[in-house]
Order: sequence, then structure tokens, then C-alpha cells
Amino acid sequence: MYENIKKQLFQLKSNKIFEALVVAVIIISALEIGAKTYELPAFANSLTYGLDLFITLFFLIEITIRFIAEDNKKAFFKDGWNVFDTLVVLVSLIPINDSELALLARLVRIFRVLRMISIIPELRTLINSLLKALPQMGYVVLLMFIIFYIYAAVGSYLFADINPFLWDNIATSMLTLFRVMTFEDWTDIQYETMEVYGWSWIYYMTFIFLTAFAFLNMVIGIVINVMDKEGRKVELGQENEAQELGDKEPSITDLQQEIRELKQLILAQQDAERR
Amino acid sequence: MYENIKKQLFQLKSNKIFEALVVAVIIISALEIGAKTYELPAFANSLTYGLDLFITLFFLIEITIRFIAEDNKKAFFKDGWNVFDTLVVLVSLIPINDSELALLARLVRIFRVLRMISIIPELRTLINSLLKALPQMGYVVLLMFIIFYIYAAVGSYLFADINPFLWDNIATSMLTLFRVMTFEDWTDIQYETMEVYGWSWIYYMTFIFLTAFAFLNMVIGIVINVMDKEGRKVELGQENEAQELGDKEPSITDLQQEIRELKQLILAQQDAERR
Amino acid sequence: MYENIKKQLFQLKSNKIFEALVVAVIIISALEIGAKTYELPAFANSLTYGLDLFITLFFLIEITIRFIAEDNKKAFFKDGWNVFDTLVVLVSLIPINDSELALLARLVRIFRVLRMISIIPELRTLINSLLKALPQMGYVVLLMFIIFYIYAAVGSYLFADINPFLWDNIATSMLTLFRVMTFEDWTDIQYETMEVYGWSWIYYMTFIFLTAFAFLNMVIGIVINVMDKEGRKVELGQENEAQELGDKEPSITDLQQEIRELKQLILAQQDAERR
Amino acid sequence: MYENIKKQLFQLKSNKIFEALVVAVIIISALEIGAKTYELPAFANSLTYGLDLFITLFFLIEITIRFIAEDNKKAFFKDGWNVFDTLVVLVSLIPINDSELALLARLVRIFRVLRMISIIPELRTLINSLLKALPQMGYVVLLMFIIFYIYAAVGSYLFADINPFLWDNIATSMLTLFRVMTFEDWTDIQYETMEVYGWSWIYYMTFIFLTAFAFLNMVIGIVINVMDKEGRKVELGQENEAQELGDKEPSITDLQQEIRELKQLILAQQDAERR
Repeated sequence: MYENIKKQLFQLKSNKIFEALVVAVIIISALEIGAKTYELPAFANSLTYGLDLFITLFFLIEITIRFIAEDNKKAFFKDGWNVFDTLVVLVSLIPINDSELALLARLVRIFRVLRMISIIPELRTLINSLLKALPQMGYVVLLMFIIFYIYAAVGSYLFADINPFLWDNIATSMLTLFRVMTFEDWTDIQYETMEVYGWSWIYYMTFIFLTAFAFLNMVIGIVINVMDKEGRKVELGQENEAQELGDKEPSITDLQQEIRELKQLILAQQDAERR
Repeated sequence: MYENIKKQLFQLKSNKIFEALVVAVIIISALEIGAKTYELPAFANSLTYGLDLFITLFFLIEITIRFIAEDNKKAFFKDGWNVFDTLVVLVSLIPINDSELALLARLVRIFRVLRMISIIPELRTLINSLLKALPQMGYVVLLMFIIFYIYAAVGSYLFADINPFLWDNIATSMLTLFRVMTFEDWTDIQYETMEVYGWSWIYYMTFIFLTAFAFLNMVIGIVINVMDKEGRKVELGQENEAQELGDKEPSITDLQQEIRELKQLILAQQDAERR
Repeated sequence: MYENIKKQLFQLKSNKIFEALVVAVIIISALEIGAKTYELPAFANSLTYGLDLFITLFFLIEITIRFIAEDNKKAFFKDGWNVFDTLVVLVSLIPINDSELALLARLVRIFRVLRMISIIPELRTLINSLLKALPQMGYVVLLMFIIFYIYAAVGSYLFADINPFLWDNIATSMLTLFRVMTFEDWTDIQYETMEVYGWSWIYYMTFIFLTAFAFLNMVIGIVINVMDKEGRKVELGQENEAQELGDKEPSITDLQQEIRELKQLILAQQDAERR
Repeated sequence: MYENIKKQLFQLKSNKIFEALVVAVIIISALEIGAKTYELPAFANSLTYGLDLFITLFFLIEITIRFIAEDNKKAFFKDGWNVFDTLVVLVSLIPINDSELALLARLVRIFRVLRMISIIPELRTLINSLLKALPQMGYVVLLMFIIFYIYAAVGSYLFADINPFLWDNIATSMLTLFRVMTFEDWTDIQYETMEVYGWSWIYYMTFIFLTAFAFLNMVIGIVINVMDKEGRKVELGQENEAQELGDKEPSITDLQQEIRELKQLILAQQDAERR
């Protein structure tokens, strides 16, 4: 009987209408989250309360269906997206009566919108490909961190007395340097320190050039990496195409072999005639 | 007789001088629109009134000519540019005496400048290629919207009391986040919220990195896509070139076939001699 | 005798030391221009006066040498760089006693620094390649101008009363829109107009997206164009390489021809034996 | 005996645990530098004093080991990274009691963090590849410097009286122009000069377009350069692959040779039969 239910649930899960329903509930959930940021009349508040309960229950049922329909229960939790979905549903089940934690409960519900990514396959593959690109630029990120760290230490040692708000310690200095990197009112910071250390424009210039250069390097690295992959795909595609043609075109080596056989035939003929 | 007029109009439409005239009238129309933004003396105002009438009539006649000259009347409205041109002309025909709608009438006339795009073929193909690129980045745009939506909801929940002007509801928050993404005075927003939530720099940092990363991904995607198309064009071009050469170069398989024929000839000869 | 002088001047012109001398004088000229922006003591002022005279004379002599050394006098003025050099030298010869024109005279002298580009071949080829890239993006620039023009007209009609400094007429509006495109305090402009027209964020958003999209398209266009050229160079280079190898590798068609000759030989032999 | 020590030290140097230890000490050194930017209690200060001594000694011993373990003592100093490491260690050995130089001593210690780059091979190759890219863009940098220099001279001549803080001399003007290039409050500067010279927006516009264009050109140049190298690597890799296959595929020329031999055999046979 369990097998029977499982089959029916699998059919339900794979149903186009069911999938559309789940997407619809996620969108409603997102709209509700958005609506709550506006000041709502009293009746709307009680409405969202009911809606909240409905969405929580719906998601709970949906995840249960997907879990039961899965053949291999272990494989279910090996997929990061399933773990993510389950966590989001479970956390929103925790009853929070404490008003202090009410804010936290609201924040958790926002993450339901992320389920949009786990439910739409195209977004899932997009995120997966983004995550794959991350480790490749690991060393450039490390290099940029070292540049930031050294400049932040120097900035903190030299400029801490000029403007403690910006340069008090290495953490604030790194935040200030990130601001400089985004060119956000960076000349105000520069003019301030130049009053004390006239040469401090060198500090900002070298920092901007180093980070811009490292960043450019990273971007180029990613572009080339992506292109290489695309290129390989194209090449693989062509090979497959060639193999699908069935009869392989003979190589020049094959031809050489046949010509040699021909030569031996003629030589054998001449030997026979001489005798 | 109608056919006769149609032919003559088709010739007129295809006339280089006629085309140049249409472009000239569009430029005059654009200059008039620009001139109206300056304070003009009284006589100039009446002049622009007359000019307006002339341009409206000219465009009406031009579109009529193009419609009559078209063989297939249905195909005329299947071309988006024709529909656009007709709409622009028709809307500017509506008589607006009401002074309140005068502003709207002026705005509609501005869209006549867009006719520049529909009349110059190079701009038309440029716009068409831009429109074709749009759907490809659909999912990245959806992903960026989800990132914006979630961060806007979080920002609205947390920072609404700190600065209602920036974070009052999800719509204002999204506008504020777009401002953060363009790095426009984003540190002012950050410093303000950091006074209440000291860790809120994480909110801005992660947002900037996520959107920058997604944006970078989109740009790379478009570049690769465009290059792929260019590459295919080049390949197709080469194939065409090869076919235009007339005599195809024999393949190695053809050669193998000929060598085998040669072998059979010699073997047949040997058989004959043996007998 | 003239031919003799010409030869000697040509040798002088091609002399490495002479070239280095010209570069040195250009650098001195640039340093003098820079030095003049500082407040100089009285004796330095008279020094720069003498230096000015020396540089003017040196450049005059140098251009005369180059003109005489040239075989084809017409070809001399067909090269844009020579025309540029001659103009810079001639203009700085005009005696300016009038104190009002003194500023103009100083400005003209600044253009001498541009001679650095005409004298260093690498910079010349760089500029030439930049100029070649310009016409390719002509239509994208036209498209961006149309976008700017339409938005400026709309902005001027709607926002002129809100802030005349930014939106008074179509020219100021275009300047303001360029500011918006560089994200320079663009939200201040936006918040100002949103007080009157609450929906005006759509105006800025669409403008930013359209220009960013057109700009991106232009950049991609240039990248692909440059790559295509590079690619062709590489291909041409390979062909040249192949041709330089002297003996061309036979094509498969050549082989087929030889095999057919072989076949006819064998057939002829069989015919002979049968008889 | 010295050879024996050398061998043992070489083994130590190549030891994975030893390498990890060096990285750990560099990280501790970096953390100490960061910690010092915070106000520390008295006992922590004496702790960092001891830590400083330990790190200095550790680095001294490590560099000595690496020097002794090196076979060719001259080659040791030919590697820029070794020279860098030795300098950092030697400079931090100089005893600084003078309180005025204390700041300098702190700054020198920060450069120890850069040893992270010299110890991690991946970062070393990254920096090396960045340094290799530098000379390629030498002429574009020179071109941008000329653009900056000319605009700074013009700006200084014209705008010095309007705002001496921004345009006083050529150095300040270049700093201001760099600010304009980063779009940092550049319209404030523009509006200020436009009050006196109404057309001065042309100055800023042309400057922004020229630098943006030159910068774009540089980026594209680097991208193409990097891709070319990657491309060559791929090609070289394919060639190596082909050579590793051992038996080379015969060329069409080889085939032609064999067919000609065949032909001569048959002709020789016919000659023999005729006789």
C-alpha cells in the first residue's frame, strides 16, 4: 500500500499543475512579505496571519510529498536544495510567541522566497554554475584580501588620529578602503589626510590601481575560464557529431597502408614474370 | 488605375530623395522639439505651430504612401516598426484643445524622434539585435530581482524606523538598494544603519558582491552568446566560400576508393596471366 | 647641390641621436609648460621666455629639415601627422604682444606636447588604431544620442519648473542626463523630481538601463571587432608561414590525379598484353 | 659535514610541515599587526613585544635555512622573491629605540604580510603573470599620461583663479582630473568652472571620453593578449599530444612519394616486357 501511495505522490510531484501551484504559493508568500512592509489595516493583518498559516502548512505538505515520493531517502538529503527547502520549512514551524523574536520569525519567512530558486530548474543551474566559478577565483580574492589588509594596517597606523571614525582600527580601515574602491566620496577622505601627510595621495592612487588591476585580472580570468569550457563543449559536440556519422573517414595512414599493399602486389607480379 | 498609383507610390517610396526628405523632416521635428524647451519670442511660437501642422500632415501623407505602396496590406501591420509609425502619427492627429492635456500632446510629439530609428535601416537592425539579446538574460534578471526583493524585505523590516525615507516599504527599499548598487552615496546609508545595527555592513557588502557577481555573469553570458553567433557566421561563411569554389576537393574516402579499384585491376591482371 | 643637402638632411633626420634630441626638446617643452603653472621667481620667468624662443626655433628648424629631406613634397602634407606638426609650429610663431591673447598663446604651446605622439611611432599606430575603431561605433553613438535627446526633451518639459538649473532647456537636460549616466549624485536629482512626480523613478531607471545596455553593446561590438581583426591577422600569418615553407604540400586533388594516371598505365599495359 | 647539514636543511625546507609552520607564523604576524591597531591592555602590549621578537628570529632562521640549503648561492639572490624576503627580514632586525622612528618600524613590519605572497606558489605565479602584463600596456599608460598632462596644463591655466585648491598647479590639476575620471563629485567641479567659462563642459566631456576610450582600449588589449597566450598554450598542448602519440601520421607528401614509386615500378615492368 505504501508503494502505491509513493507512486501516486511521485505522479503528483511530477505533475505540471502541481509545480505551477507551488510556484504560485511561493509568489503569494513573496507578495505577502512585501505587503507586510506597508502599514496595513487591522483586517489585513488578521488575513496575513491566516495566509501565513496556510503557506506554512502547504510547504510542509509539499516537502513531505517530495520526501515520500523519493525512492532513495538518503539521496534526498544529499541534494543541497532539498536540505535548504526542509530547513526553511522546519524553521518556520517553530512557534514564536515571544514578541522579541517576532522580528527573527519575519526574517526567516523571507527566506521562503529563495525557494523560488530551488523550484525553477533554470535558476538552480544558474546558481550552481555561479558556485562552480567561485573556487577558481580563490587566489585572486586572497591576493585582494592581502592588499586590503596591508593598506588597512598602514592607514590605521598613519591616519587613526586624523579621523578615528574612518581609520580607528584595521576593521574600520578595511571598510573605508572598500568605500575608496567604490569611488564613493573617496576624495573627501583623501583631502582630509593630505592636510597632514601631503604625499598621502600616493597611498590612495597605488591602492586604487592595485585593486583595479587585481579585479580586472579576476574578471578576465573568469571570462577566459568560461570561454574555455564553452570551447570544450563545442569541440566535444563536434566529435560526437563526427561519431554519429557512423562511417569514419579513413586516415592518411590507412591510405598509405593500401598503397603499400598495391606495391607489394606489383612486385610479386614482377617476380612471378621473371621466373 | 489603382495599380498604377500603387506602382508610382512604390517608386516614390523607394526613391533616395524621398527617403532623405523624410529623414530631414524628422530632424526638423527633433530640432523643433528641442527649440521649444527654450523660451521663444511670440512670433517663433506661432511659427512652431505652423511647423507642427506641416510635420503632422507630412507624416500622415508619408505613412499613407507607404501603406498604399505595400502589396500585402496584412504584412504591413505585421512589421512592428510600421505599427509604431502609424501609432505615432495617429496619436499626434488627436486634436487637443484642453490646456491640461497640452503637456501630454507635447510628450507624444517627442516620440516622433523615435521614427529616426524606424527610418534608418542600420538603427533598426541594431535595435532588433538588442531585443533579441533580451530574453537570453531573462533568468539572470529574475535572479537579480529575487536578490533585490529579499534584501529589500530584510532592509524594510530592520531599517524602516532608522530612516523611513529610504526604507519605509519594500518599494522604497528596492529603490534605495538600486542606489547602493550604483555606489551613489551608499556609505551615508551604511553609516546611518551601522549606528543602530553595528554589523549591518555585512548586509551592504553581501548585497554588493551578489549583485556585482550576478551582473558580471550576465555580461559574460551576453559576450559569449554574441561571440558564438559571430563564430557560427564565420564558419557558415567559410562553408559557403568552399561551395562557391565549384569543384569540391576529393575526400580521403574518394582516394581510398580509387586505390581499391587499382588493386582489383592488378589482381584481375594476375588472374588472367595465371590462366 | 640641393640634392646633396637633401641627402645629408635625410641622414640627419634618420639619425637616432637626432630623434632622441627632438624627444628631449619635447619633454623640456612639456616640463616648462608644467613649471609655468607654479608661481615662479622673476629670474625663472625670463628663463622660460628664452627657453620658449629656443623651443620655437628648434621645432621650426626640425620641421624644415623634415620637409626638405622628403622626396615627394606633396606626400609630406598628405600625412596628417606632418600637417599637425607644421600647424603647431606655425601657430606658435605668431607674435602675440596683446596681453589678452597671452592666455591663448600659452594654450597653443600646450599642444606642442602632442608632438610626443607624432614623434613616437608606437603612439602613432596606437592613435591610428583608435581612430579606425571610431566609425564602427558610429550608429551606436547615434542611437545613444537619440536616447539622450528624447529623455532630455521629456525631462525639460516635465522638470523645468522643479529645478531650472538642471532641466531648463534641452542642452542643460542633456548635461544633467550625462551626470545621471555617470551615477554622480543622481539620487539627489531623482528625489527632487519624485516629490512632484512620484513615478519619476521610472524615468531614471529606464534611462540608466537603456544607456547601460547600449553602452555594453558598443563595448562588446568593439571587442568582437578587434578580435576578428586579430584572428584574421593570425590566419594570414599562418598562410604566409605556409607559403614561406617553399614547397607546398600537395592537395588531395593532386594525389587523385596521380592515382588516375597510375590506373591508365595499368589499363594500357593490360591492353598491350591482350593483343 | 657542511654538505650533511645542507642536505638535512634542504629536507627540512622541502618538508610540508615546515612550510605550514612558516605560513602559520606569517598569519600570526599579520594578526599581531591587525591587533596593534586596536587599543590593547598593558599586558597585551608586552605580549606583542615578545611575539615581535619571536617572529623576527623565526624569519631570520628560516631565511638562513633556505640560504644554506640552496646549492647555487648566486642563484638564490637572482630570484626576486628571495631578495624581497631577505630585505624584509634584515630591515626588521635594525634596532629602533628612537620613538620618532617607531612608526617607521611598525610600517616595515607590515610588509612581512607580503611574505604570504612569496611563500604561496599560486600567489607568486599570479603576481608574476600580473607583472608580465605591465610592459604590454606601457604605451597606453604613456598616452593616458600625455592626455592627463595636457588637460591638467589647460585646466591650470584657465581655472587656477576659480578654485586654487583644485587647479592651482599642474600636480593638483592632475589629481583633480583623476577625481573627474573616477566620477567622484565631478559635476561640482564642472558647475563651478561653468559659471565663469560657460563652455567648460566641453573640457570635461572630451576628457572623460578620451580617458574612457583609452582605458577601454587598454582593457581590450590585455584581454586579447591573455587570450592569445591561452590560445597558444592550447595549440602547443595539442602538438605535444600529437607527438606523444609516437607514430606520426604520414603527410600527403609522403603518400605522393609512394604513389610515384609505384608508377615507376609499373613503368619499369612495361619496359621489361617490351624488350
